[in-house]
Amino acid sequence: MSEILVRLERLIVERKAALAADPALAETSYVARQLAKGRLRIARKLGEEATETVIAALAEPDDALVGEAADLLFHLLLLLADREIALAEVLAILERREGISGIEERKGRAP
Amino acid sequence: MSEILVRLERLIVERKAALAADPALAETSYVARQLAKGRLRIARKLGEEATETVIAALAEPDDALVGEAADLLFHLLLLLADREIALAEVLAILERREGISGIEERKGRAP
Amino acid sequence: MSEILVRLERLIVERKAALAADPALAETSYVARQLAKGRLRIARKLGEEATETVIAALAEPDDALVGEAADLLFHLLLLLADREIALAEVLAILERREGISGIEERKGRAP
Amino acid sequence: MSEILVRLERLIVERKAALAADPALAETSYVARQLAKGRLRIARKLGEEATETVIAALAEPDDALVGEAADLLFHLLLLLADREIALAEVLAILERREGISGIEERKGRAP
Repeated sequence: MSEILVRLERLIVERKAALAADPALAETSYVARQLAKGRLRIARKLGEEATETVIAALAEPDDALVGEAADLLFHLLLLLADREIALAEVLAILERREGISGIEERKGRAP
Repeated sequence: MSEILVRLERLIVERKAALAADPALAETSYVARQLAKGRLRIARKLGEEATETVIAALAEPDDALVGEAADLLFHLLLLLADREIALAEVLAILERREGISGIEERKGRAP
Repeated sequence: MSEILVRLERLIVERKAALAADPALAETSYVARQLAKGRLRIARKLGEEATETVIAALAEPDDALVGEAADLLFHLLLLLADREIALAEVLAILERREGISGIEERKGRAP
Repeated sequence: MSEILVRLERLIVERKAALAADPALAETSYVARQLAKGRLRIARKLGEEATETVIAALAEPDDALVGEAADLLFHLLLLLADREIALAEVLAILERREGISGIEERKGRAP
């Protein structure tokens, strides 16, 4: 299911390489256009989408929150790609914590 | 690879049900403790993690950004679970857009 | 000097009353147009301006930060007016803390 | 009334100079301690306070919003001082816009 994140990341990384070879790609590809805006504008968008996610979570219907969360994930992938960090590194942190937390929670519930 | 998100979501949903049955779980489980704080505090944490992700993207080394992005994803999962929205719904939006964008980008590059 | 905040607040409160009497004011007055968007959109703008202030503080020249800080203050005044809270109440909190902190700092530096 | 912002700014600028001369001041003065954390941490706090202001505006009682708005203003003053930008510059922008907007709004309502 969550393979869409992997596919999206691959698409973004490909567009980034293609954009470096051909800046005009920003005119025809949405992903390339976002990347061409540069790190500051991508980071700003991530911040904006987070604010919108917070507001949707508190005061808007489900479909609004679903849409904002999707925007937030997309801009996180863009920002990671801009810094040349793989999503896998981020997920590896979550996996490591899952292990530690599993141990802690088992200790916490010890007989 | 990204199955960790699916496992984390399942863990959060399980803890949410267990917490409803036994509020004392908040004392021994980290995930339950975060959930027990309620929607406003979870949303606040998401906003904070987004700010930290923005700052790390602009001014901090890779490992800081990786850690902040992991925190952001984790709190997004908590917020979705609090609202009883499945991550699958969010990913479905990204998949739908992927289809649309694929078509548009092919049109944009048409011979 | 900081009387501009007081004048701006008065302008916003006046426009709010005028807008309630005549919704068409949103077409000719910038302030009325912002107010007409409602609390969620004003709050969203405040969040966006804060992100832009953070980014400008870390990575942009002085005039960018000055502009973003002005936007942030303006949207804070709009949000307070939307909730019918006077800026004076906010400043009163800062004054009270100033008193407390003055005492504490004097104690801290005691001979 | 809004002279408290001017006094607070003066206090922050004084503490900044004193902290540069004596780093131990961070132990006894709250303001100096915040400044000593450095630009990234001050910017992060500004972002956090903005998120809390957004949440309070949507879902909390008046006194919570008043407190968060005060925190936001205080951290904005700290961030400006860290960048050695005077609040007067920010207010001058608001004054200039006030003039322009006054003209535009008069035009908009022209007979």
